[in-house]
Amino acid sequence: MKQYLKKHEWQIIEQGFDPHYNRISESIFSLGNGRMGQRANFEEKYSGDTHQGTYVAGVYYPDKTRVGWWKNGYPEYFAKVLNAPSWIGIQIKIGKHDLDLKQCKVAGFKRVLDMKQGLLQRSFVATLPDGKKVKIEASRFCSMADGEVGAIRYSITPENFSANAVITLSVDADVVNKDSNYDEKFWTEVAKEAKAGLALVTAETKKTQFHVTTAITYSIRSAGKTVKGKSKANKKEKYADNVVTIPLKKGVETIIYKYAAVLSSENHPKKKLADNAKKKLKAAATAGYDQLFAAHVAVWTEIWKKCDVTIEGDIAAQQGIRFNIFQLMQTYTGEDQRLNIGPKGFTGEKYGGSTYWDTEAYCLPFYLGTSDPKVGRNLLIYRHKHLKRAIENAQKLGFTNGAALYPMVTMNGEECHNEWEITFEEIHRNGAIAFAIYDYIRYTGDEKYLSEFGLEVLLGISRFWSQRITFSEAKQKYVMLGVTGPNEYENNVNNNWYTSYIACWTMEYTQQALDFVRKDDPTKFNKLVASTKFNEKEETTRWGDIRKRMYLGEDKKLGVYLQQDGFLDKELVPVSQLRPQDRPLNQKWSWDRILRSCYIKQADVLQGLYLFDDRFDNATIQRNFDFYEPLTVHESSLSPCVHVILASKIGYKEKAYEMYLRTSRLDLDDYNNDTEDGCHITSMAGTWMSVVKGFGGMRVKDGKLHFNPFIPDQWKSYSFRIEFRGHVIKVKVSKQGVETIRESGEPVQLVLNGSTITV
Amino acid sequence: MKQYLKKHEWQIIEQGFDPHYNRISESIFSLGNGRMGQRANFEEKYSGDTHQGTYVAGVYYPDKTRVGWWKNGYPEYFAKVLNAPSWIGIQIKIGKHDLDLKQCKVAGFKRVLDMKQGLLQRSFVATLPDGKKVKIEASRFCSMADGEVGAIRYSITPENFSANAVITLSVDADVVNKDSNYDEKFWTEVAKEAKAGLALVTAETKKTQFHVTTAITYSIRSAGKTVKGKSKANKKEKYADNVVTIPLKKGVETIIYKYAAVLSSENHPKKKLADNAKKKLKAAATAGYDQLFAAHVAVWTEIWKKCDVTIEGDIAAQQGIRFNIFQLMQTYTGEDQRLNIGPKGFTGEKYGGSTYWDTEAYCLPFYLGTSDPKVGRNLLIYRHKHLKRAIENAQKLGFTNGAALYPMVTMNGEECHNEWEITFEEIHRNGAIAFAIYDYIRYTGDEKYLSEFGLEVLLGISRFWSQRITFSEAKQKYVMLGVTGPNEYENNVNNNWYTSYIACWTMEYTQQALDFVRKDDPTKFNKLVASTKFNEKEETTRWGDIRKRMYLGEDKKLGVYLQQDGFLDKELVPVSQLRPQDRPLNQKWSWDRILRSCYIKQADVLQGLYLFDDRFDNATIQRNFDFYEPLTVHESSLSPCVHVILASKIGYKEKAYEMYLRTSRLDLDDYNNDTEDGCHITSMAGTWMSVVKGFGGMRVKDGKLHFNPFIPDQWKSYSFRIEFRGHVIKVKVSKQGVETIRESGEPVQLVLNGSTITV
Repeated sequence: MKQYLKKHEWQIIEQGFDPHYNRISESIFSLGNGRMGQRANFEEKYSGDTHQGTYVAGVYYPDKTRVGWWKNGYPEYFAKVLNAPSWIGIQIKIGKHDLDLKQCKVAGFKRVLDMKQGLLQRSFVATLPDGKKVKIEASRFCSMADGEVGAIRYSITPENFSANAVITLSVDADVVNKDSNYDEKFWTEVAKEAKAGLALVTAETKKTQFHVTTAITYSIRSAGKTVKGKSKANKKEKYADNVVTIPLKKGVETIIYKYAAVLSSENHPKKKLADNAKKKLKAAATAGYDQLFAAHVAVWTEIWKKCDVTIEGDIAAQQGIRFNIFQLMQTYTGEDQRLNIGPKGFTGEKYGGSTYWDTEAYCLPFYLGTSDPKVGRNLLIYRHKHLKRAIENAQKLGFTNGAALYPMVTMNGEECHNEWEITFEEIHRNGAIAFAIYDYIRYTGDEKYLSEFGLEVLLGISRFWSQRITFSEAKQKYVMLGVTGPNEYENNVNNNWYTSYIACWTMEYTQQALDFVRKDDPTKFNKLVASTKFNEKEETTRWGDIRKRMYLGEDKKLGVYLQQDGFLDKELVPVSQLRPQDRPLNQKWSWDRILRSCYIKQADVLQGLYLFDDRFDNATIQRNFDFYEPLTVHESSLSPCVHVILASKIGYKEKAYEMYLRTSRLDLDDYNNDTEDGCHITSMAGTWMSVVKGFGGMRVKDGKLHFNPFIPDQWKSYSFRIEFRGHVIKVKVSKQGVETIRESGEPVQLVLNGSTITV
Repeated sequence: MKQYLKKHEWQIIEQGFDPHYNRISESIFSLGNGRMGQRANFEEKYSGDTHQGTYVAGVYYPDKTRVGWWKNGYPEYFAKVLNAPSWIGIQIKIGKHDLDLKQCKVAGFKRVLDMKQGLLQRSFVATLPDGKKVKIEASRFCSMADGEVGAIRYSITPENFSANAVITLSVDADVVNKDSNYDEKFWTEVAKEAKAGLALVTAETKKTQFHVTTAITYSIRSAGKTVKGKSKANKKEKYADNVVTIPLKKGVETIIYKYAAVLSSENHPKKKLADNAKKKLKAAATAGYDQLFAAHVAVWTEIWKKCDVTIEGDIAAQQGIRFNIFQLMQTYTGEDQRLNIGPKGFTGEKYGGSTYWDTEAYCLPFYLGTSDPKVGRNLLIYRHKHLKRAIENAQKLGFTNGAALYPMVTMNGEECHNEWEITFEEIHRNGAIAFAIYDYIRYTGDEKYLSEFGLEVLLGISRFWSQRITFSEAKQKYVMLGVTGPNEYENNVNNNWYTSYIACWTMEYTQQALDFVRKDDPTKFNKLVASTKFNEKEETTRWGDIRKRMYLGEDKKLGVYLQQDGFLDKELVPVSQLRPQDRPLNQKWSWDRILRSCYIKQADVLQGLYLFDDRFDNATIQRNFDFYEPLTVHESSLSPCVHVILASKIGYKEKAYEMYLRTSRLDLDDYNNDTEDGCHITSMAGTWMSVVKGFGGMRVKDGKLHFNPFIPDQWKSYSFRIEFRGHVIKVKVSKQGVETIRESGEPVQLVLNGSTITV
């Protein structure tokens, strides 16, 4: 845990430069706009420790799989988030020296992420080896108003000298993935251009053949006038630049504006990429930095109007929750059905693929609550688009008849993970994808979605469960053998309660969906039956039989559901009795020891009780919470939020707050010592849920918002905004009580602490 | 399955050259002498498909581990059997053309492995591209009389021309492991020499720093006279040779004798290696090919006297059993306590490490039955030497107090395998190592071994079991969670019956061993108690409690032991109902499907009933056999022999014979399509056991040999020889009856079909 960042309501602030924290700051101060983004790398040269990372949404590379021992069924490749051509480079040379913070004395260093405006700022005074002092003020943003545009304002003021400066404004496609399995580079060059006022590189990914054109231009101003300078354009392999020599005058500020256009073949014909990039670039430069920035800020202002959470009396918590919301909003804007929420967003490339079950189980509720319904809908359609691949994926594992198994990790619908215990067995992800359809419709009321896309997905998933579940003659019950539940500290177990429960629920909901679509859109219904060769009678009879006779482990004496068969054979020693030197288990214990221990990486039975909390009474939830919580080590960033929500529900306020602290500043305080690899984007949604569904007790029932708020003792007040069916509702909770304010939309009925009110 | 080899009682014969079979033949025709060996590569150049492999016992390399996802506890390296410098090269150039079977027309090709004499022979007539016809007859052996010596007789007869031939006699250390994880070469050069009559290279393995000196000399004779020729000596990186130009005369045979000495720093001081090699080489050359060969054959004659198995009426079976015995005997001679039996012997480098539990469970009974007791004893001492490493290995996994976990795969006692489900969980190997001590003493009567080495090993293993077994409050029984049994088609299961049973048995036997050593050698006993900090009362009390209250799964209704918890929840569909296109499962089904299926890779419960068959009545064995056999796919080469032995015991003669066919010609017929990687050396011991313990019904009880033989309908007679406590007994079984003959040693009592007889 590190706490080198300053606390501030709206900003993340690093004061003073400590190279040891640089990779962490590069992650935390990352920028994005849903289409592209990059780590908070310096514009100027930096020869110290750094992880240079630029990313373009949807552009990936199928790296060759690396395994120890091949298991039949493994995918041939592992799709990687791709480190993309960099457009931020502004190299400064004064006299014989590069401006390079590794080689300079640095004073007054400050790095600020302004979350209200989506702006990265940096300022410092550097003393070059020859004693020249230069003051730098840099600002950068990726435009939320136009996802293909980025801009930099880079100001230079010589403090004790006048001299010429050589400024290199580059586009660099000669980049490498940190996690390349065989140290390969994944880009080849297609075309490049370098002339006065333009540097452009079009690069192509190997195998996937995505094209990305990155083009930059610039202008330089000093003392209110444009500075022309002596300019030269250069090209190298996968690289282009403009080099400008300008005079710097002691005490006079010179400002470099660098504009970038980043276009990918996902959105433009390959042949038109360069032309379109040049047009876009010209428009950006014509508009100028200030106008681009104003448009960008306007978008953020609108976003915050819908989703801001305030916390009074705890500035660390305030900063934490806004940081989480900010990162989520700049990672995924919901405009493109082909995109999804990578576990590291635009802040790093670890964990490869972009889409995990995190999206459905954690991120969807966040976007439903804070954004236009089309955002959630696009997340669902993303999976609908991948249905064919999910069916192929299931076929590879021996399933038939249109059974669909969605991948554990994916870029394009194909599975690209390869630990057998996860890839093949952590199949509860399929349940989360089904549940997301239900969750979306429950929230938005958009039942039509079932007819349009939802039922087809549900059918594929139910067919999978129906084949995956087998009948035990010994138990005279249906069983589900060989699975890994959400708690990945158990592998290849039988009858994981959560997985079996959500499987049965899926078949139940699919039956309802069938009945709905049959009435709602008979033509569509019949078409679907025909195209999927659905034998309704036979298949739904089996679903019904499974639901009736499914084995769901339970210990009646303890009154708890059993995480899996044999769980009670373990030595049940609470986490509190573990020695500190044994934590975290995943770094200290060998894998087999973890597996046979009782320790739970992340909510498992409790994950089920959270998703289906309207089906269980509080006493049941409490018994299970009391049993499983003391055994949970929360070594997944996705775990604490579920505990916050359940603890809040059963009135364990202290526990809820304790768990909240673990989730809200995970990255800001580098809690798990891994923020340098990138931020934990998907789990940030859990922080939001902790406040809104946990402390705020928000639920949707029968088309209405329900709240059962409480306030942690440590806070004076907190508020959150909820976008719900065309209304924006602000809920403010203080020691004195609860205020509900309708900020936009028509009057609406809410249920507050069980009483219906109209706002 | 391929059947291109000719059948012969004592020979393996390949007639005609099919390059597609070359790698398979290279494996099958391999030579070895316990100290070194090599695949049946051609002496002359071959530019076609080949896997060049030379191996020196005990010389290994710790290759960097390659994994997909790192699991805590994995070893940092994977020790590899090392492809070593080659001494067989005799390149022939006539005119402008190399003799290279890829570039020539080949007639009359014949490759013969003479198993009686341990000789590899090859003859053919090659037509060079320019029409010159040359007849070659090559013979090669690795001397069983001196493990550091090899010799080649290579005869050349020009059929239609006279011309000069340029002969290159090389030592080549520039070799590579086929399975190198990162394509590295593992040898560096230390020294080399090349002068008339000598080429020598001393090479060093990286990291492990083994030195191996390989030296060659030669003589050439034609028409009864020595041919001198024009000679030149050359050196290159990791390479030395002698190049001799000699005249070939049409119709006249020229014979090249090449002698090699291969010495390793395991047996010689590094500084003396080259000198000692030259001395050895000189002695070999002075003795000459014929005398070396005679000494070599004399050793084989003695070996066959003790261990030959004859089968009348089935030449394929006769060839098969001799091939298995031959390979085992040339892989491991039992003279060196540091060596063990690699899964591929000297026939290939796949599977890396040298020692698996195969040694104790399969190979030990073979060597006990066919060799001097010191051979078996040395196999036990090998593990005693590794005890300290086994304790360290257990410590890495969190065990304490001198608990020992022997590695799954090893070269030097350290674990070097890294699939968590095997490395960490297939712990029954520890039981096999304990059982081997019991088995050795039962066979040899050498109880003193317990005092000398045995008890210390047993104590470490029992301590491991005692910690690995935990108490289930729910069951009020001791349980063993998270293991992989011998059936590797189940991973991370609870209460694998075999593992739990052998664990309890180990603690029982360790108790007996304690009592024995206490009486037999009180000083030694007390020293051991002190050095191991053995708290006898406390520790043995726990062992006793575990044995009393261990949970051993059983289904009373079916009357079978349960392979593991939940086995009866599976869909129990017999193998006979699988579609042919689904076999072998490990190539056709994804891993998860295999895991949740009922199919058994190799004997598991049955492995236990085999090892402890004196503790179970025939009805119990039969019930379990009837239950598990139909579910067993035998996709391990170690499986069928156990079924042969049990089937024989319960009178299932047809089944026994059917299973025998699967094991006896596994490599000769390339049954699993993988012989090109090397032969399945360790499972060959199972073939021998199938005949002797299966058909012959051999057991040792109360210090006496017992036999209960039957003869398969397909055979006229069979016989085997058994070395037992200073006697060699031949048992001959025919349709007419059983004959027992004492071939050496004093008169001895045997129990034949329950009646004691004196032979």
